[in-house]
Amino acid sequence: MTLREKVAQLFGVWVGASDEGGEVAPYQHEMEEPPALESLLPQGLGQLTRPFGTDPVDPALGALSLLRSQRRIIEANRFGIPALAHEECLAGFAAWGATAYPVPLSWGATFDPALIREMAAGIGRDMRAVGVHQGLAPVLDVVRDARWGRVEETIGEDPYLVGTVATGYIQGLESAGIVATLKHFAGYSASRAGRNLAPVGMGARERADVILAPFEMAVRESGARSVMHAYTDTDGVPSAADERLLTGLLRDTWGFEGTVVADYFGIAFLKTLHGLAGSLGEAAGLALAAGVDVELPTVKTFGEPLLKAIADGVVPEAVVDRALHRVLTQKAQLGLLDPDWDPVPAALAGADLTDPQELRGTVDLDPAGNRAMARRVAEESIVLLRNDGILPLARPARIALIGPTADTPTAVLGCYAFPVHVGSRHPESPVGIALPTLREALAAEFPGCTIDTAAGASVDGQDTGGFAEAVRLAADADVVVLALGDRAGLFGRGTSGEGCDAESLALPGVQQQLLDTLLDTGTPVIVTLLAGRPYVLGRGVAESAAVVQAFFPGEEGASAVAGVLSGRVNPSGRLPVSVPRRPGVQPSTYLAARLGQVSEVSSIDPTPAFGFGHGLTYTTFHWTELDVENLTADTADGIRLAFTVRNTGKREGTEVVQLYVHDPVASVVQPVQRLIGYRRLHLAAGEAARVRLSVPADLVSFTGLDGRRIVEPGEIELRLGASSTDLRLTVIGTLTGAVRTLDHTRRLHASWTTAAAAAR
Amino acid sequence: MTLREKVAQLFGVWVGASDEGGEVAPYQHEMEEPPALESLLPQGLGQLTRPFGTDPVDPALGALSLLRSQRRIIEANRFGIPALAHEECLAGFAAWGATAYPVPLSWGATFDPALIREMAAGIGRDMRAVGVHQGLAPVLDVVRDARWGRVEETIGEDPYLVGTVATGYIQGLESAGIVATLKHFAGYSASRAGRNLAPVGMGARERADVILAPFEMAVRESGARSVMHAYTDTDGVPSAADERLLTGLLRDTWGFEGTVVADYFGIAFLKTLHGLAGSLGEAAGLALAAGVDVELPTVKTFGEPLLKAIADGVVPEAVVDRALHRVLTQKAQLGLLDPDWDPVPAALAGADLTDPQELRGTVDLDPAGNRAMARRVAEESIVLLRNDGILPLARPARIALIGPTADTPTAVLGCYAFPVHVGSRHPESPVGIALPTLREALAAEFPGCTIDTAAGASVDGQDTGGFAEAVRLAADADVVVLALGDRAGLFGRGTSGEGCDAESLALPGVQQQLLDTLLDTGTPVIVTLLAGRPYVLGRGVAESAAVVQAFFPGEEGASAVAGVLSGRVNPSGRLPVSVPRRPGVQPSTYLAARLGQVSEVSSIDPTPAFGFGHGLTYTTFHWTELDVENLTADTADGIRLAFTVRNTGKREGTEVVQLYVHDPVASVVQPVQRLIGYRRLHLAAGEAARVRLSVPADLVSFTGLDGRRIVEPGEIELRLGASSTDLRLTVIGTLTGAVRTLDHTRRLHASWTTAAAAAR
Repeated sequence: MTLREKVAQLFGVWVGASDEGGEVAPYQHEMEEPPALESLLPQGLGQLTRPFGTDPVDPALGALSLLRSQRRIIEANRFGIPALAHEECLAGFAAWGATAYPVPLSWGATFDPALIREMAAGIGRDMRAVGVHQGLAPVLDVVRDARWGRVEETIGEDPYLVGTVATGYIQGLESAGIVATLKHFAGYSASRAGRNLAPVGMGARERADVILAPFEMAVRESGARSVMHAYTDTDGVPSAADERLLTGLLRDTWGFEGTVVADYFGIAFLKTLHGLAGSLGEAAGLALAAGVDVELPTVKTFGEPLLKAIADGVVPEAVVDRALHRVLTQKAQLGLLDPDWDPVPAALAGADLTDPQELRGTVDLDPAGNRAMARRVAEESIVLLRNDGILPLARPARIALIGPTADTPTAVLGCYAFPVHVGSRHPESPVGIALPTLREALAAEFPGCTIDTAAGASVDGQDTGGFAEAVRLAADADVVVLALGDRAGLFGRGTSGEGCDAESLALPGVQQQLLDTLLDTGTPVIVTLLAGRPYVLGRGVAESAAVVQAFFPGEEGASAVAGVLSGRVNPSGRLPVSVPRRPGVQPSTYLAARLGQVSEVSSIDPTPAFGFGHGLTYTTFHWTELDVENLTADTADGIRLAFTVRNTGKREGTEVVQLYVHDPVASVVQPVQRLIGYRRLHLAAGEAARVRLSVPADLVSFTGLDGRRIVEPGEIELRLGASSTDLRLTVIGTLTGAVRTLDHTRRLHASWTTAAAAAR
Repeated sequence: MTLREKVAQLFGVWVGASDEGGEVAPYQHEMEEPPALESLLPQGLGQLTRPFGTDPVDPALGALSLLRSQRRIIEANRFGIPALAHEECLAGFAAWGATAYPVPLSWGATFDPALIREMAAGIGRDMRAVGVHQGLAPVLDVVRDARWGRVEETIGEDPYLVGTVATGYIQGLESAGIVATLKHFAGYSASRAGRNLAPVGMGARERADVILAPFEMAVRESGARSVMHAYTDTDGVPSAADERLLTGLLRDTWGFEGTVVADYFGIAFLKTLHGLAGSLGEAAGLALAAGVDVELPTVKTFGEPLLKAIADGVVPEAVVDRALHRVLTQKAQLGLLDPDWDPVPAALAGADLTDPQELRGTVDLDPAGNRAMARRVAEESIVLLRNDGILPLARPARIALIGPTADTPTAVLGCYAFPVHVGSRHPESPVGIALPTLREALAAEFPGCTIDTAAGASVDGQDTGGFAEAVRLAADADVVVLALGDRAGLFGRGTSGEGCDAESLALPGVQQQLLDTLLDTGTPVIVTLLAGRPYVLGRGVAESAAVVQAFFPGEEGASAVAGVLSGRVNPSGRLPVSVPRRPGVQPSTYLAARLGQVSEVSSIDPTPAFGFGHGLTYTTFHWTELDVENLTADTADGIRLAFTVRNTGKREGTEVVQLYVHDPVASVVQPVQRLIGYRRLHLAAGEAARVRLSVPADLVSFTGLDGRRIVEPGEIELRLGASSTDLRLTVIGTLTGAVRTLDHTRRLHASWTTAAAAAR
């Protein structure tokens, strides 16, 4: 291959599929100079960027458009190499008419990686069917500052939860043949003050133990074939130029063999935002040398600037060859280089492709099975934060449904859902999927009940003019359902989402005032939240009748919330992020050392209103019969124990058994406790499960003073609880023997077995 | 010496001097078990803790009390070694009746290290005169999050400003024979979310270039003989146990030879708060091994716990010997081991010590010279943020003086000033020094003017009941002087001070509402701030007539503010911290890379209302005749230039010439700009100064990828300005040659010469 042909395999071009089924066309959005396909294609093309997620296009016609483009690409380059097509799939395939699943923060709330795996397999199947090869998900960023707008895109504030749920997602996506992309590698969530893209100040130990841990798990256990660098710099080193990260750690230490792709425009940012490169060619050279293989979404630095830098001797051609080898290896693995590779995707197999308009409507990306899955995930993700006994609601005669998220279809969606991400720029286009609102869901859930609805206020406006009507409706009702939350959007157009950062964790706009006003009416207030991040609830914590937290629960989310209110659904979600008590204590998460949690020495109390892992149910569980096999174990061994969880209530329900470790004395400061395992236990009324647990000492390991991961001998406390603040059983064991240094083959999980326990 | 005798030299005992002139007595405050002096003293005693700053004691009687204790100590131990007495001197000697100087944030605002040196020499002289040997100041913490309560104790948010001003302070204190104590080493100011003592997450590069830089300068240039460790952990390593910091960097690399003392109770915290030690003996061993020599304020870990740990073989005696050597070397240097050492301090020399009551009132710690110095520092520190032309005030007939800091004597004081720190616990005791309020100062400054005064609101209460009267007074007045700000206090009793952290940078209580309400009256509003941190001013930024910012300006501070209002004082202070535009953007300082400052990618705009270095005057300065000797220089050389600053106004005034560097391309992300030099220029009307400046390339250096400090070749921009946001002259130079690695002998300063320039 010529140098130009090699380089051409290393970038994408952002295309919009044609709603006429024609070839894709370079996308103009945010691009000063869209590349001229005509002159590019003879060299070949590495990737096609967002063929479905750019404009509202009928999926069948989008698939046809992509197919035609692939044929043109194959024909234009002398090796006949097709492009790899990638698309976003943050919370479902980002295509018009595709299922909008709950956002990742909801996945975290399920504590159910197997379910998320199943969901992702479905997402992957739909993407694969229309010709997409790579999905730019999941996000493995661990929440560090809940003001950050992209919190909704994360799985939560604990690295073990993030790692396990993300691994489930990746396994599902990859099982469908889609290349999953771990992002953002690494540190993006710790952007200073929660401001999007702001520099990250973080030490090497925190980075290793919190930020990198889920990536390590995913690389080892998920089969992910791609990684995307983070935009941010950490301690002055942008990820896109961080050779120690992208090559030393990811490949040389962890053994990753896939591709590293750029976050959109991230390589050019090395010049324009980070000041690491004096030219775009230098930026390309830095990224390639560090280990970035593919420039996305389009060619900014890997074209003429890189060619010039190579010609000038500034960048060695060897880094191009290295990246090319990875890219072509991946294309080969995908079958794209097979002589019999057929560009016709499954969705179009056997169809008559000569008349595009006949295809319209033939590909359904939101069939009933998808909706059922979206509903299952939503139902498992709803977290009941508080319940004074009002829930489940006895047949109410009259509900006052108030609030800015009461009757807005898109209120259940995050910023990467197609109707928000793309649809909001195309008001002329139908939404493409059914999005029942909370009003509609309540009407379905409570037939015969009168539901009076009023917004009361907008999500983030300052107008309190609607309060009077809200109060009037509350006075007439048996109960108020107060629907608060966010409006997802991009770059300042929402209260949550990419570029929609918050200054504090106070509810947006006048929502707290609306809540206080309704609490003053005396009618019981059930707060529901459709939100992208946790918010302070003020008086709502103690004075509301109930609080139901949903994190953008997707197209079936309103129905799931309604089901929790009626009792059809027994809530089983658990908080993947703490709900704060005070608005201005960020950055702060549960994963903090003692001095990050105490209030004696500061006027600011960081104690959360509801802690990590919290969530109520409509039944009760008793934890009993703790049996510890060994209280002492070598640092190379582990502690084995068993206990029984019994559903002592009157209905089936799910307990989420959470295992935390507390290390009272360690050579570096440890979090007070951190999650090292969990299991969902679904138990019928009266049913009991015997849980046997073997906890390897490896799980107590941390990054020691010399930067290596170690297990130290000494006392160790294993805490089993229904949440981080509701501990039920504690085992104080002792690790003996020598300090042990671990490598990247260490054990990452406890071993769990559950069996039916005898009834009592 | 026996082991017990050795160890006894390594701790202090907290004593309160007797107001009867008797011996000091162990202080009960916060101590469960005050040590029994009777049994301790035969072994000797390392230090006496806070003989003056514990209770309101007449200074002469305090000196006598200390003298008697020293005699008892000398007599009790077989070597006749006296104790070293230490006291706080954060903003003046922390003794009853001693001068309350402006707080360090005001020192930073002066940009005048020579003045601060002179002030500190006076503080040291007063301390030395009554028998104190060591002062626990200055604070070299660089502001990272202005929510932190101790911001008032810092010099500002730029390491060069902090380093130079602190060096002036230390030189002054040491010139009087007082051991200065650099604190808090290192990282305390970066406590997470600005919460006192919360863990610090920070990378090694930021730590080196921001946090450690001023300490390095002070160790090299100031002659400081003691260092105090920080309470906090950085990336999991508490400073008190950080051998790399306290020994590797401080001693082995920087060559420091003095003592390292514990922050109060900080060694025990290794067990109780950090979880690094399983016992107090282990904590003692960790601290000694790391390089802490002296336990303060009292013996918690260095007594029986340490002795037991040594006996058990857990701690080697060698670490005790090492610390002992440093402690005794320092006592020897202080003359305490000389056979003819006389424990009678200068203030008591020749006095009849037999009748203590005759001594009462004979030692004046706040003489006229001190007050004059306090006033000079205050006057130089006041920052005029905004002036629509109303200032200096023409003879107003009627001023409405409104606000919670209008008529409160202690409103000018920070939390370590004696009347706040100690006096607040002794309401029965007279304050000890005159503290004119703003009301009194205005009355003196504007004779014949009617001054109507009302608080309008309290500092942090929610009551707006006083607004109506405030509005009424405003309606009758020519001008409103609105006195806003903080109440200094400790651990939640104030709005600023140790343990008084803020959730946001909104003005405390209802002060913003009071400001808005008065702006609505139409009477011109001059805002004055007596505060410990910068605050958002909201509408005040654009709609007030003027804003005068003072940072707890000390006992003569109100007079200084009044002098600025009248024009008697031409303001010359410059902001040592940015004044924010939005309340929730912390952590954020001017010292940020581009992505820490831009607003395109986040909904939260971090642009300050008034930038670092900003400050107006009543005259005008023109910067002209830039003459660059060399635009190109080797990385081992530097750039030389000259320019003229001309006072083009009608009165004398001070320009603060600020030199910033902007490094457009570097191998790690750089701050957009950072201060590398400054000079105050006092010029008569029409006068001009020719400034010659030689800027060594060393000043462009930063910590590179491999952790070593380097200068890179390439373009470099030197920016000369009246503030970081008011740049007047820019020189774009080029450094040539190889990347150069610097060691700890690198040049730290530009060379400045100023001469009279010809009139035009």
